[in-house]
Amino acid sequence: MSEKLQTPMIIVNFKTYLEATGRRAVELAKKAEKVRNETKVSIGLAPQFADIATVVKAVTIPVFAQHVDPIKSGSFTGHVLAESVKEAGAVGTLINHSERQLRLSDISEIVNRTRELGLISLVCANTPNISAAVAALKPDIIAIEPPELIGTGIPVSKAKPEVVTGTVKLVKEINNKVAILCGAGISRGDDVATALKLGTEGVLVASGIVKAKDPYSVLREFAEATKR
Amino acid sequence: MSEKLQTPMIIVNFKTYLEATGRRAVELAKKAEKVRNETKVSIGLAPQFADIATVVKAVTIPVFAQHVDPIKSGSFTGHVLAESVKEAGAVGTLINHSERQLRLSDISEIVNRTRELGLISLVCANTPNISAAVAALKPDIIAIEPPELIGTGIPVSKAKPEVVTGTVKLVKEINNKVAILCGAGISRGDDVATALKLGTEGVLVASGIVKAKDPYSVLREFAEATKR
Amino acid sequence: MSEKLQTPMIIVNFKTYLEATGRRAVELAKKAEKVRNETKVSIGLAPQFADIATVVKAVTIPVFAQHVDPIKSGSFTGHVLAESVKEAGAVGTLINHSERQLRLSDISEIVNRTRELGLISLVCANTPNISAAVAALKPDIIAIEPPELIGTGIPVSKAKPEVVTGTVKLVKEINNKVAILCGAGISRGDDVATALKLGTEGVLVASGIVKAKDPYSVLREFAEATKR
Amino acid sequence: MSEKLQTPMIIVNFKTYLEATGRRAVELAKKAEKVRNETKVSIGLAPQFADIATVVKAVTIPVFAQHVDPIKSGSFTGHVLAESVKEAGAVGTLINHSERQLRLSDISEIVNRTRELGLISLVCANTPNISAAVAALKPDIIAIEPPELIGTGIPVSKAKPEVVTGTVKLVKEINNKVAILCGAGISRGDDVATALKLGTEGVLVASGIVKAKDPYSVLREFAEATKR
Repeated sequence: MSEKLQTPMIIVNFKTYLEATGRRAVELAKKAEKVRNETKVSIGLAPQFADIATVVKAVTIPVFAQHVDPIKSGSFTGHVLAESVKEAGAVGTLINHSERQLRLSDISEIVNRTRELGLISLVCANTPNISAAVAALKPDIIAIEPPELIGTGIPVSKAKPEVVTGTVKLVKEINNKVAILCGAGISRGDDVATALKLGTEGVLVASGIVKAKDPYSVLREFAEATKR
Repeated sequence: MSEKLQTPMIIVNFKTYLEATGRRAVELAKKAEKVRNETKVSIGLAPQFADIATVVKAVTIPVFAQHVDPIKSGSFTGHVLAESVKEAGAVGTLINHSERQLRLSDISEIVNRTRELGLISLVCANTPNISAAVAALKPDIIAIEPPELIGTGIPVSKAKPEVVTGTVKLVKEINNKVAILCGAGISRGDDVATALKLGTEGVLVASGIVKAKDPYSVLREFAEATKR
Repeated sequence: MSEKLQTPMIIVNFKTYLEATGRRAVELAKKAEKVRNETKVSIGLAPQFADIATVVKAVTIPVFAQHVDPIKSGSFTGHVLAESVKEAGAVGTLINHSERQLRLSDISEIVNRTRELGLISLVCANTPNISAAVAALKPDIIAIEPPELIGTGIPVSKAKPEVVTGTVKLVKEINNKVAILCGAGISRGDDVATALKLGTEGVLVASGIVKAKDPYSVLREFAEATKR
Repeated sequence: MSEKLQTPMIIVNFKTYLEATGRRAVELAKKAEKVRNETKVSIGLAPQFADIATVVKAVTIPVFAQHVDPIKSGSFTGHVLAESVKEAGAVGTLINHSERQLRLSDISEIVNRTRELGLISLVCANTPNISAAVAALKPDIIAIEPPELIGTGIPVSKAKPEVVTGTVKLVKEINNKVAILCGAGISRGDDVATALKLGTEGVLVASGIVKAKDPYSVLREFAEATKR
């Protein structure tokens, strides 16, 4: 049984990196759990579909799917059914990541489906305006990620603070219950601390952790930074 | 370690049916294994991504993914990496199922990727002409499935035998190493026997087994029918 | 030079109906122009891409594209460039019609592109929540169309008035400058009058006009109904 | 009434270049017609959808669409109906250009639709294997274009002659009636001459002509080169 997600939070997206596939997904998850146990900071993990069940068995921290499809059970070969990732132990799912963008009506449908199933919906958005649009769909969490900064090591919280504050402002006007994360280029503790100061409830990270020489140390630095 | 797939074969596509999700995917897999053990007929299973690892641990018969994406490892959130399903224990993958159709260049790329990784490629096709086109890409297995018969209980081997024989003829002219299956509407042992008589090496089935009141008995009937 | 669009308005979507293709698109456009001249009610037309230039030459009423792609000029074979439909004489474009749904970020990009080019953006939405999301992107016009009623002859304004009023309420909270149309099943003057009473600025119609035995008479009835 | 297309042929893809949009599409078409009249070499043009009718009216050389959708007439807002481009005067269409790639079953469906309507089908393919797959669908023309060379000015006929000869070999084994073009990087007459020597019936070009300082001269050079 996984713990509940709390703010501030750090969500680690495993993407389809080999460094976070299969056995290595479990190893990375255990490092994240160690940081969680040492710092008490809330950490969520988003491994690949085929690794969800194994990661869930290995650690107690919350696990997300990276995507689910806007479908109900039935004849949908090759699709990702929300019930399936839930039964595998996921507590929520990323939706509309910039590498897996969706039609507007499908985002709406998936948010509705996750709500029915008690899954946490974390919808990604590229711009403040798109974040505002997403806010109208009432997901649990919105993550603002300018795609041009993803994987660059140039943190959105420093390079484009106005994107973060603009998102916070627009989103809160439409929906003040949604939690806001920021992502793209987050690679140091400072970036995390800045993200929180700009009004977010945490960060969505990927290569900054997964591709780090020492993922444990970087994630530990991130977690400590949320306490500043 | 799963057994090797042999001809004739029966591939069971679990789709995203709730009857074949999570715990029930494992139960269904065990019934299939029982049939395999009793009849020695080769059976492959294609559960959802999140169930691959669990099903692989539960049974010794070969497991397929229902789809993989035309990607290499990297920044592809929400995609299905071939290495990931392989590490979870899959021996192959369905490709281009009529419910998850792909661009031609992506089918080609996925067939190449599976070949590099030692995975079995099973490409679905809707018509004899499309099957012939697929044959030029040199997959291991082609499954001809007229989409208008999928899920109907009207077997392609009886309703449209000319589609099956036409496919066998066209495919063998281009590529005589590929195994050919047929699917859509297969619901009785007779349908399986007819499929083999028409020149195929087996069947691809889904609702005929998954939605059956007694999947074990129907699958057993299918397996026996391959021996006529 | 086409006239300016005013509220209330009737937008006629020609879809890919043969009754509104090529020469017949021009004939239909002329009937619409006749109604416009007789009633002074604002009518817009959305013919197929290949018919835009011809229709624009034939009539003075405003012409829309049915879609444009989220691209700038360049290497995009087979795509629809906003500049291209503008140069052909279109004054705006439908975006995200339920038969041509788009990714959220693409809707945002297209709305921005049309604004830069001085084109009118008319974004379609399936539900009140999706309409609210669209409103955050600041298009000129939103058309609410429950897809399950499209082409049925069952008017949204009568069958689901709460969808229309809900949309008006949610959209105006987020953006009170956008014009709201409703569509789906509009087939009589009464449906148009009801749509306006529910708070919309007009209707988006297709088969109700294009497939009518006498498109002129039905469109005339629609136009008169806007004056009740 | 446009002339018939003959081999060897040069097909000029206008893409969505501003240099070949609207009024400039017509100007470019007239230069191509001048070359055609002076050299008697067969030239085809593929302008954007909204420019087809205008280009057809301006010149007598054959005009292609850049894409059509796998649909029949009906409720398909924003799609490209084959009948529509035909009525606008197109004699054929590009299909599956690397910038507008299609699902395998859709390529098959579009080839069938063009055949029914008497339109010429020109299907693009990225690799020899994909060309072979396309050949099984029996289009009129196949154009092999390695996407990594498109727009580079590095001609496929010189940089990757084995891709061209490999395509010719594989395609002819499956279907010896189809004409084969090559494209990508074609920028000088020599490239065209080499393409023909490698066994093709012509070239598919875009930026080499459209982006040239003097499109007439380059196209004239191309046309002369087909006679070597």
